[in-house]
Amino acid sequence: MDFYQKHKETLDKAISALHERKFFAQYPEHPSPKIYGETADEDGRNKFKGMLNSRFDELLQGEPEAWIGEEESPYLNDKLNVSYPSFSTETLVSRGLASFSQWRKLSPVERAGLLVESLDKVRERFFEVAYATMHTTGQGYMMAFQASGPHAADRALEAVAMGLEEMTRVPKNSFWDKPMGKFNIQLNKEWRAVPKGLSVVIGCSTFPTWNSVPGIYASLVTGNPVIVKPHPGAILPIAIYVAEVQKVLKENGLDPTICQLAPDTYSKMITKELAEHKDVKLIDFTGNSEFGSYLEGLKGKTVFTEKTGVNSVILDSAENIDEVAKNLAFSVSLYSGQMCTAPQNFFIPDSGIKTADGVVSFEDFAQKLADNITGLANNPKAGPFVLGAIQNQNTCSRVDEAKSLGDKVWLESATIENPMFKTARTATPVVLEVTSAKKDVFSKELFGPIVLLIRTKDTGESIAMARDLAMEHGAISCGAYTTDQATKEEIMDQMGLAATPVSFNLTGGIYVNQNASFSDFHVTGGNPAGNASFTNPEYVVKRFTMVGFREPAKAEA
Amino acid sequence: MDFYQKHKETLDKAISALHERKFFAQYPEHPSPKIYGETADEDGRNKFKGMLNSRFDELLQGEPEAWIGEEESPYLNDKLNVSYPSFSTETLVSRGLASFSQWRKLSPVERAGLLVESLDKVRERFFEVAYATMHTTGQGYMMAFQASGPHAADRALEAVAMGLEEMTRVPKNSFWDKPMGKFNIQLNKEWRAVPKGLSVVIGCSTFPTWNSVPGIYASLVTGNPVIVKPHPGAILPIAIYVAEVQKVLKENGLDPTICQLAPDTYSKMITKELAEHKDVKLIDFTGNSEFGSYLEGLKGKTVFTEKTGVNSVILDSAENIDEVAKNLAFSVSLYSGQMCTAPQNFFIPDSGIKTADGVVSFEDFAQKLADNITGLANNPKAGPFVLGAIQNQNTCSRVDEAKSLGDKVWLESATIENPMFKTARTATPVVLEVTSAKKDVFSKELFGPIVLLIRTKDTGESIAMARDLAMEHGAISCGAYTTDQATKEEIMDQMGLAATPVSFNLTGGIYVNQNASFSDFHVTGGNPAGNASFTNPEYVVKRFTMVGFREPAKAEA
Repeated sequence: MDFYQKHKETLDKAISALHERKFFAQYPEHPSPKIYGETADEDGRNKFKGMLNSRFDELLQGEPEAWIGEEESPYLNDKLNVSYPSFSTETLVSRGLASFSQWRKLSPVERAGLLVESLDKVRERFFEVAYATMHTTGQGYMMAFQASGPHAADRALEAVAMGLEEMTRVPKNSFWDKPMGKFNIQLNKEWRAVPKGLSVVIGCSTFPTWNSVPGIYASLVTGNPVIVKPHPGAILPIAIYVAEVQKVLKENGLDPTICQLAPDTYSKMITKELAEHKDVKLIDFTGNSEFGSYLEGLKGKTVFTEKTGVNSVILDSAENIDEVAKNLAFSVSLYSGQMCTAPQNFFIPDSGIKTADGVVSFEDFAQKLADNITGLANNPKAGPFVLGAIQNQNTCSRVDEAKSLGDKVWLESATIENPMFKTARTATPVVLEVTSAKKDVFSKELFGPIVLLIRTKDTGESIAMARDLAMEHGAISCGAYTTDQATKEEIMDQMGLAATPVSFNLTGGIYVNQNASFSDFHVTGGNPAGNASFTNPEYVVKRFTMVGFREPAKAEA
Repeated sequence: MDFYQKHKETLDKAISALHERKFFAQYPEHPSPKIYGETADEDGRNKFKGMLNSRFDELLQGEPEAWIGEEESPYLNDKLNVSYPSFSTETLVSRGLASFSQWRKLSPVERAGLLVESLDKVRERFFEVAYATMHTTGQGYMMAFQASGPHAADRALEAVAMGLEEMTRVPKNSFWDKPMGKFNIQLNKEWRAVPKGLSVVIGCSTFPTWNSVPGIYASLVTGNPVIVKPHPGAILPIAIYVAEVQKVLKENGLDPTICQLAPDTYSKMITKELAEHKDVKLIDFTGNSEFGSYLEGLKGKTVFTEKTGVNSVILDSAENIDEVAKNLAFSVSLYSGQMCTAPQNFFIPDSGIKTADGVVSFEDFAQKLADNITGLANNPKAGPFVLGAIQNQNTCSRVDEAKSLGDKVWLESATIENPMFKTARTATPVVLEVTSAKKDVFSKELFGPIVLLIRTKDTGESIAMARDLAMEHGAISCGAYTTDQATKEEIMDQMGLAATPVSFNLTGGIYVNQNASFSDFHVTGGNPAGNASFTNPEYVVKRFTMVGFREPAKAEA
């Protein structure tokens, strides 16, 4: 069937949204029974439970060489015992190459239609994906649903829409008619958007779908077969996406290995082997800076990375400091600071923060922030669900060691009890004070719930430090609080130079960590945090090449 | 004055042309007195002569540290004795950085307007540029005029138009209004196209303006200051462009060092020092593969390269083989094969070329090609002007050595007499026969007038070899002759995979070497020949970063 016609309205809306950058969402973010069905949540939970202690047998990649899987739930503190079909790099690459011609020869609209159809199929499994995400990443239920389900699907749709627009931007053909004086040179010209080749998408352990589906769908829509290499700690959420893509492919007479899953284990990671393979032309990666930089250095590959960054909050002045402290306390607590957009370094002038009710001293703000974090963590109706669990034991160790980094501990990290999962691995944020001289402490990402309050001479120094950190070590987000127009302009100008988006004066129900499809660019490539570029034109145009053909036009008879 | 309003119509036309990819030229390519003025040619020649044996003192870069210059005319076989102001890398970089804020804070339309104004000023100097190009590159008069004047200016305008479109594609701001059920989250969002920083454009000796002005203008329109580092053998043509840019900047109260010339000498090249400088963020390069690959490997830089390629002609079948031989003889003779788009490897089936009048054998075609080359070279009204002169003595040596590479010499290279320049360094094409087994011979660029006729099993082998060569060693152009639709499709498909544009069945006054602004992509990044990408979106979007700012919208009073 013609999926492009079926989904044309959705794609047209998505393309318009990208142009206007206004609010748009195709997949509702609220896990409401009214939207997704009365039994959707329970059904999803049961399906997830049914997957445990068994083989994930939905993939259509043929007989595997082995069944592997080492995922553990940070909530259950136990293995999931799900195993996945494993294949050698040579098998994956040769099957990907074998499927290439079939996929690339479809038109962009045919590919786009099939891909949106697969997203609609995943929509029916958002709750399964949510539970799979909770029990691999440690995200709270709401975040797991939203980030891995509707938000990820919207980002995938965004990539499909952008890819479709860019591929069809140049006309398929044109008549080129050049007057030469006594005669004309007339050529028929034709252009084809030729995909670069085999694509490998390397996932991370904390956002296994949100950070991977844009690359998967961007490569697919532009005609490249994809090998999805999830993090060994978070396979199940993305395996469900891949399974649905494969089903849509197969049902439409296409080779399911156009999109393959390539799971591996901690003891035998296949990432380097895949990335270095001569036939792999495109790489998408989310993870640590060291590995990301190694990938960026590989010759002859087009590489998109989201590496680490050091995110700052610049505190200058505010209308209501209590609202500020409350908002930021939520930001550092959300998923226990395990977001690439979570703020880490809070720059506060020694002279305090100017407010409508007078200056709030460094100390007073530090106390307010600590109190708000404690209040949130200890609220049994909010704390456990906002904080979630800690994906990796190393993060707990890092939080533990962080205590000794600062000049003063404003708030110790603690564990909290999760009413549903007694065994959950938890850690509330630690808040430290550091002087601006201790650059070595705050010049790197301290992944997890670690907050540094940095005492600066003045806001000028705060801005300069936030800018320099972003330029030298990367940054993915920046929060700023100022009621002064000139200071705001200075922050925009200086953080702009460091290619870091800034959220100003956020209070209430919107947080610096959040990043909206169809509107907010994400990791745009202007600083060392990476060049993933969700989703600006660079994100798709580098995945294909426009190739032109021309021939003299025959004279009319 | 508002140059954007003055040039809006031109820019709008240029943007439309890029969309439609139909014929468009802003700067007339014919050096006609009716277009450029009755005395334009003579005036230009006299001005060029006046520049010889003196200092080029038009630049507005302050007091130089030295005056240097080593250009030689391949026609006069003598030094030009033009010297240029020289500055240390640190001076160039610090002045470029000092001018950055002023330039980046102009709006895209302000920058675009100023840049088109500078092109219009250069237009008044096209004849000077033409003579400067002849006497540095060895190009014939007509090519020197067209390639360095109107065609280069059109490619610069194309880059300005594409940059303007891409920078203004995202709205300046938008109101983001997200329904949350009981309330809405409302944000004012704003985006700025932030330039990446200091840009270095490295020129080549054969096309000193055509290959450099796209990068210069693409970087400038996107807000980046530019340091132009010409080849020490071809400075004058691009110095005139830079001088005109500087004059327009100064006349409008801007710092002329927004665009600086950085000449050097063969004995003390400053290219590496400039490229490796930590403050240099963008590099454009035309030249050899080894240096280009070194530049591509530099960390933290955005690099555009046009390196070497191995260009093929696939001969399968033709309507009129004499027209084919005539067309190709011109292609290999034009500027003595010193074009990046010149064909080198002619793949011909052992069984010959099918034509309407029967099969033309390998031998017969070889003889026809040789005869046409000889006829052209020996035609005193055409030969010297089409062949031009040899830029670099090394090319003559390479032609000399080439004789021994093949199985048979079908045509020896010769010198010809140029009626205007008795001392001109010339070399007509050498034509060799090679079997398809001798891959080592034809798997590299043999820069200059060297033609290899490669005997293949059949057209299938011809296509496979042309494709593999392009994939492994790069290719910038491909010519193909076939009257069979299936063969044509196969060539499009296979050469498409190697990201190589194909010109089919060219005869008459259009040649595979030619590449039209606003229509033909050039070095699109899909094979090892480079990623210069004149001018697709990648060429401009990688020169800036879209940075977003957002803030809660105030409730209406």
